[in-house]
Amino acid sequence: MTLDLGATARELTCALVDIESVSGNEQRLADEIFAAVSALPHLLVHRDGNAIVARTGLGRAERVAIAGHIDTVPLAGNLPGQVRDGVLHGLGSCDMKGGVAVALRLAAHLERPGRDVTYVFYDCEEVEADRNGLLRLSRNCPELLAADFAILMEPTDGEVEGGCQGTMRADITVAGERAHSARSWMGTNAIHAAGGILDVLRGYTPRQPQVDGLEYHEGLNAVFISGGVAGNVIPDECVVTVNYRFAPDRSPDQAREHLEKVFAGYAVTVTDVSRGARPGLTHPAAASFAAAVGGTPRAKLGWTDVARFDALGIPAVNYGPGDALVAHARHEHVRLAQVADCEARMRDWLA
Amino acid sequence: MTLDLGATARELTCALVDIESVSGNEQRLADEIFAAVSALPHLLVHRDGNAIVARTGLGRAERVAIAGHIDTVPLAGNLPGQVRDGVLHGLGSCDMKGGVAVALRLAAHLERPGRDVTYVFYDCEEVEADRNGLLRLSRNCPELLAADFAILMEPTDGEVEGGCQGTMRADITVAGERAHSARSWMGTNAIHAAGGILDVLRGYTPRQPQVDGLEYHEGLNAVFISGGVAGNVIPDECVVTVNYRFAPDRSPDQAREHLEKVFAGYAVTVTDVSRGARPGLTHPAAASFAAAVGGTPRAKLGWTDVARFDALGIPAVNYGPGDALVAHARHEHVRLAQVADCEARMRDWLA
Repeated sequence: MTLDLGATARELTCALVDIESVSGNEQRLADEIFAAVSALPHLLVHRDGNAIVARTGLGRAERVAIAGHIDTVPLAGNLPGQVRDGVLHGLGSCDMKGGVAVALRLAAHLERPGRDVTYVFYDCEEVEADRNGLLRLSRNCPELLAADFAILMEPTDGEVEGGCQGTMRADITVAGERAHSARSWMGTNAIHAAGGILDVLRGYTPRQPQVDGLEYHEGLNAVFISGGVAGNVIPDECVVTVNYRFAPDRSPDQAREHLEKVFAGYAVTVTDVSRGARPGLTHPAAASFAAAVGGTPRAKLGWTDVARFDALGIPAVNYGPGDALVAHARHEHVRLAQVADCEARMRDWLA
Repeated sequence: MTLDLGATARELTCALVDIESVSGNEQRLADEIFAAVSALPHLLVHRDGNAIVARTGLGRAERVAIAGHIDTVPLAGNLPGQVRDGVLHGLGSCDMKGGVAVALRLAAHLERPGRDVTYVFYDCEEVEADRNGLLRLSRNCPELLAADFAILMEPTDGEVEGGCQGTMRADITVAGERAHSARSWMGTNAIHAAGGILDVLRGYTPRQPQVDGLEYHEGLNAVFISGGVAGNVIPDECVVTVNYRFAPDRSPDQAREHLEKVFAGYAVTVTDVSRGARPGLTHPAAASFAAAVGGTPRAKLGWTDVARFDALGIPAVNYGPGDALVAHARHEHVRLAQVADCEARMRDWLA
């Protein structure tokens, strides 16, 4: 089989969903995409593992990157896809093969867009960051990603979502002293003491700052808790793992300082951090895109790969078909009319 | 080698320590004890696996059970035993081969005690309850354990410790609702909600009731806590495992009712319970024993196998050489003079 880029966006979305591409297993889909875009004479194509970059080279004043990951979360008995009442149900339909179909259609049919375009199809977005195909591209060949503005085709229900919040995980640790539980007063119970950490979390009011005109909404939550030695021992350690989602007006360092202040008196160890991205909607290309596709831009609360573009100095927004609330769910789905609508709006803007 | 019951209590304790008998590996020591007591014509000997029961049959008005477990916790680089300044250091020296040595000496040398005596040497006390040799004996041949009073030779530093507290473990569970941690307000964080459970524990005042004249000291402690789904998910469950040590004036049912009341509003699931034992010091044999060995009887706070005798309707106390605070420690030890002293006091009482 070869992907038919002449098919409609609806048909192409269905075809993409039916090529299973769980993270780590993207080769067949990458081969198909590589073959399809390599057949287009107006594009320069580069492949790095299972990531593919296809560029126009028209010498336009501005260049736009349009990116989408081709992998999905694991199978959940939801392949092949099924269309019911104009809605495609199936693995990856929402996150984000609808968006990939839009990008492939634009790549095939916009031979001479008004802005140069760099199409990026990449692997391993749904797994650990160090396997991420966009990260790999940004290290192996950053010049291929150069652009004035980037659109990441994550599901946003057809609305522009600017930037993204950062995410930090940290272990908050409290110590105690072991003792036999039959003589508990000889020790100090670290799990009881962790109640103080939970008090902080229960009393915490998250910020909702305006950044570049968009309102973000932070969050600070325990995502894991663990403690205990044995059923008859007063525990001497309890660890609460917190996840801090921070607005893009804070750097990772500022986020860490905030956690150290909030949890003053406890040992705070940051285990993982991904910077946020400012929405960049003040950039002319971004502003014209937002105006062209319509709607009211809103803040992206979840972390996405727009932060990788931000780290390269490229303002980026999220825009794509599908409701992010059903992403990763067994019942994920996308309205096929929305896929076609996204394609039409982007085509109008780029033409 | 054959155990020499003609050796002094000090020598016998050293010999017993040097026969390694970690739980599950008691056979060699059981063989030695079985051979030694079988050679004594004044005793009727029964063996059940690695548990041995040896009884006088003098037709006395009262019968006393003297029991000790022959297993130890795992090796910790503390064998063979070493005597320094009259103190024997080594695995099992405190818990409880000093007490076993006393019982073996009494078995060998008291041919016509004033009370009939049932000596019980049993396996697997230091592991899961369902492997316990005394429990097995009580099921396979309860008639062999029949007695008016029992002395369990657990380390009590040569003081009579009456009865024991019960122990109950229960899972206290709080539910929440999952959500992506980037939109945490869409869910309900079960770990945060578990702060309410920790509040209860932090505010709890344990009872210190008098039971049969002895003061017990209860305790209610978290021994484990766990919760969490993934680093980016608001957790929908948190489980706090509590250990309730309850005085022997409460039955297991009353202990459960107490936990249900204390944790009203949470799901309480009892996972494990061992009943306590009343001290029974009002029984004439127990009272005469306590008077004979001297000191001021005190309450046993940790759970011991006296509860198994209590369950058979036999009042029981703990009495033996060695300080329970060093039991199970790598540096466990026993003063050899205390072993000899315990033997002398018990011999005087039984003669």
